[in-house]
Amino acid sequence: MRPHITHAHFHARLVMVGFGSIGQAILPLLLRHLDIAPQQITILSATEQGERIAREYHVALRAQPLTRENYRALLAPLLGEGDFLLNLSVDVSSRALIEYCQRCGALYLDTCIEPWAGGYVDASQAAAQRSNYALREEALALRTRQQGPTAILTLGANPGLASIFVKQALLKIAADTGAQMDSPRSHAGWAELAWRLGIKAIHIAERDTQVAARRKRRDEFVNTWSVDGFIAEGLQPAELGWGTHERHWPHDGARHIDGCGSAIYLNRPGAATRVRSWTPREGPYHGFMITHSESISIADHLTLRRDGEVVYRPTVHYAYHPCDDAVLSLHELAGRNWRAQAQRRIIRDDIVAGADELGVLLMGNPKGVFWYGSHLTIAQARELAPFNNATSLQVAAGVLAGVVWALHNPHAGIVEPDDLDHEAIMQIARPYLGEVVGVYGDWTPLDDREWLFGEDLDRADPWQFKNIRVA
Amino acid sequence: MRPHITHAHFHARLVMVGFGSIGQAILPLLLRHLDIAPQQITILSATEQGERIAREYHVALRAQPLTRENYRALLAPLLGEGDFLLNLSVDVSSRALIEYCQRCGALYLDTCIEPWAGGYVDASQAAAQRSNYALREEALALRTRQQGPTAILTLGANPGLASIFVKQALLKIAADTGAQMDSPRSHAGWAELAWRLGIKAIHIAERDTQVAARRKRRDEFVNTWSVDGFIAEGLQPAELGWGTHERHWPHDGARHIDGCGSAIYLNRPGAATRVRSWTPREGPYHGFMITHSESISIADHLTLRRDGEVVYRPTVHYAYHPCDDAVLSLHELAGRNWRAQAQRRIIRDDIVAGADELGVLLMGNPKGVFWYGSHLTIAQARELAPFNNATSLQVAAGVLAGVVWALHNPHAGIVEPDDLDHEAIMQIARPYLGEVVGVYGDWTPLDDREWLFGEDLDRADPWQFKNIRVA
Ligand SMILES: NC(=O)c1ccc[n+]([C@@H]2O[C@H](COP(=O)([O-])OP(=O)(O)OC[C@H]3O[C@@H](n4cnc5c(N)ncnc54)[C@H](O)[C@@H]3O)[C@@H](O)[C@H]2O)c1
Ligand SMILES: NC(=O)c1ccc[n+]([C@@H]2O[C@H](COP(=O)([O-])OP(=O)(O)OC[C@H]3O[C@@H](n4cnc5c(N)ncnc54)[C@H](O)[C@@H]3O)[C@@H](O)[C@H]2O)c1
Repeated sequence: MRPHITHAHFHARLVMVGFGSIGQAILPLLLRHLDIAPQQITILSATEQGERIAREYHVALRAQPLTRENYRALLAPLLGEGDFLLNLSVDVSSRALIEYCQRCGALYLDTCIEPWAGGYVDASQAAAQRSNYALREEALALRTRQQGPTAILTLGANPGLASIFVKQALLKIAADTGAQMDSPRSHAGWAELAWRLGIKAIHIAERDTQVAARRKRRDEFVNTWSVDGFIAEGLQPAELGWGTHERHWPHDGARHIDGCGSAIYLNRPGAATRVRSWTPREGPYHGFMITHSESISIADHLTLRRDGEVVYRPTVHYAYHPCDDAVLSLHELAGRNWRAQAQRRIIRDDIVAGADELGVLLMGNPKGVFWYGSHLTIAQARELAPFNNATSLQVAAGVLAGVVWALHNPHAGIVEPDDLDHEAIMQIARPYLGEVVGVYGDWTPLDDREWLFGEDLDRADPWQFKNIRVA
Repeated sequence: MRPHITHAHFHARLVMVGFGSIGQAILPLLLRHLDIAPQQITILSATEQGERIAREYHVALRAQPLTRENYRALLAPLLGEGDFLLNLSVDVSSRALIEYCQRCGALYLDTCIEPWAGGYVDASQAAAQRSNYALREEALALRTRQQGPTAILTLGANPGLASIFVKQALLKIAADTGAQMDSPRSHAGWAELAWRLGIKAIHIAERDTQVAARRKRRDEFVNTWSVDGFIAEGLQPAELGWGTHERHWPHDGARHIDGCGSAIYLNRPGAATRVRSWTPREGPYHGFMITHSESISIADHLTLRRDGEVVYRPTVHYAYHPCDDAVLSLHELAGRNWRAQAQRRIIRDDIVAGADELGVLLMGNPKGVFWYGSHLTIAQARELAPFNNATSLQVAAGVLAGVVWALHNPHAGIVEPDDLDHEAIMQIARPYLGEVVGVYGDWTPLDDREWLFGEDLDRADPWQFKNIRVA
């Protein structure tokens, strides 16, 4: 085995909140690639889950759930100027933690903008308020005049690397079509590149084929990462960055009254909303349009304005085909009117086969659709790092790259994956992503439609969301 | 083991067309319960599949697909007056075989009204013509003035026993609510009973939980009975008997221009149409509204007319939750725009657990919904008969009862399960149905709706199809 590269030195304290599938996945990588001692790390988690792993790495784990009431008191003795808060929990408000870090001068990173427990399904809130759009706006509103300590929002695989993949993909298409030379240096530059390449829609197109020996049981939700997290985001309204080329308003669509305006939502759960997409290995498939922060942030960053008017934006959303047992879990959950199953199981060490094919699909360029991303098998993941499956390792790759970036850029204020140097992130993440490929395809969502039944399609433009959505 | 009851004597010839999951399931039961010798039976099938089983029972099997061109020539030497044609094939026109039997005086039974190969997905035909409504009308049009030899249409489990279960259920609800004394003696009598009991909707509510050791693979359709049959009917338009209480016309609904008028269809595949239903063991679930002959025939037979005007009819349809690997197969099939997978697998001997919970759910009576049907585990099925899973044995039970009924009533002409004496059929079928139960429930499709998102519901009447359908 080659010696591991040390990407950064870190001599302060690191507090990890949450030690579930992602927390356990990242711990070995942090110790591997940072110059850090286990004694510098403290894990705060809701339960003792993973205690054996923490002990194996000589890292302190305290089973002590953070709440709206206790988080300041719990964090006070553990965090100060120059320390790091790595938030890998569910049900702990990202906003509260970011504010806390801003005040005490600690660095921060999460992989999802979480509300306090129950926030995602708080029926007393309007759908718009339960959206990722609202959570993102609230987090970005914490930006201050002086940049303050770095706080990286949503840097896992997706959200996270997805934003990086989009830039890689745009450059690749540009190179392949002779369209562009230099890498853009501003958001407007990237937006202009996407616009010049004719990109109308971008999917985060993922097919997870991992499978455990034991099948999903009745009244059980099985997934390859947080079941709580997946159910919560699945019950949020479906959301999508809304492109300027769209000319058919969804009957259940709604706009937000304030904020950046990049995205809309549908008045229904993402877990009940299917879309057509494509990956190189799966081919055409139906995925779930689960809301994700990157649907909003990528669309926002790729918005091109002229004299204050929006002239270009792609449609951006997730098209998630989770592992087969998760598809069955969603089917059962829908049948239960979205009341969560009693049992939850995250598969990892019991996985017997499969891979996570996770990338971005850029649509609209005349050369065809272009998928760019990671294909990581369970066997590769196990070779690369302990306590991982393919899904968690893709996420951990993003987290690792983000932590390193934050340590190298400690005064960047609140940033999103779209704000970071994509090459620097890729360099660190790439060794954990298996096969990273860019593949063209001639797929369109109009392929082979209507051979049996008429459908309401816009044949003049394949990339209309109306054609993508499964009605 | 107790000696088996001989239900009928049969000294003529029996030709079985098709020897797939249902053909293999029924063969041992025919030899067990009829006074018949193996030499009287000939199997005509498309392939040699099941040849070992036929040989074990000393029954001749000829691998020779019937076609529009050759069926007369193939059947001529094998069938004559008083013989029996048992049609358990796919892709062979029921209508052609029925006409043939009428002409030569042979008895006939099938479990599905099949068109010739390709008929279900013949895109040159309008959706109405690809419906089971049309297939049933065409078959019933063969009825002659004199009744002629008995030809039983669609007598398996569903279609088949489902019609019998409805009568059992109506009598049970009547008894439990003090509503009625004598068993009705005419279709109008049954319709009046259903109307008096307030039955507005009837589902064929089925949850199959059988599971094999090996999981569904990519590009493979897995099911517990005919994969070809399931794909074909899944791609027919969704169909439902249309109740007189319905006050919301489906946006994609269409009426037939002729025929009995009991059913409508939706301009989309049943495999893409989900409905809410309930079974005692599964609880609330989402099923697929796959078209079936019983949706139309039950609604037709329970139609009450006064002075030629329809005054009552329940809504009737299937709410099928196939085995988990079939749910995944449907999901994959939809993602492929309904182009069938390359691999097909019917699970039977490799099943490791599960049961088929198959019954009818009667809705509208003030006492609550009432589910009546069979719960048969794979273990019970294996104890009861060789070469079966729970699904095929429920079907074979119906076929056996139908064959016996035909032998006892050889001059009944063309009949449907709804036309038969339900008690006689139940008596023969019941030993193969595992636990036969009637269970009340307080479920309605309005339960627990809209806790997160508003929906277009009719709160004044839970039993509107609009409330049942998954939008
Ligand atoms: N961006 C991505 O690519 C990506 C991918 C997967 C997961 N995620 C996100 O990462 C986070 C963690 O995911 P996971 O799969 O590890 O989840 P998990 O369910 O496996 O673990 C969640 C952890 O949070 C802890 N926790 C729960 N409530 C807490 C509280 N009140 N205080 C402290 N800790 C608490 C739990 O004890 C557990 O250790 C989630 O927000 C999830 O959405 C992001
Ligand atoms: N009513 C019910 O409850 C019920 C339940 C299950 C199946 N069925 C019906 O029973 C029938 C058989 O189902 P299965 O599960 O046994 O199907 P299967 O796919 O297992 O077998 C079909 C059989 O038909 C034969 N066949 C195909 N083309 C033929 C041709 N041209 N000539 C002669 N034989 C041909 C095949 O060789 C095979 O033996 C189907 O119509 C199905 O819809 C009804």
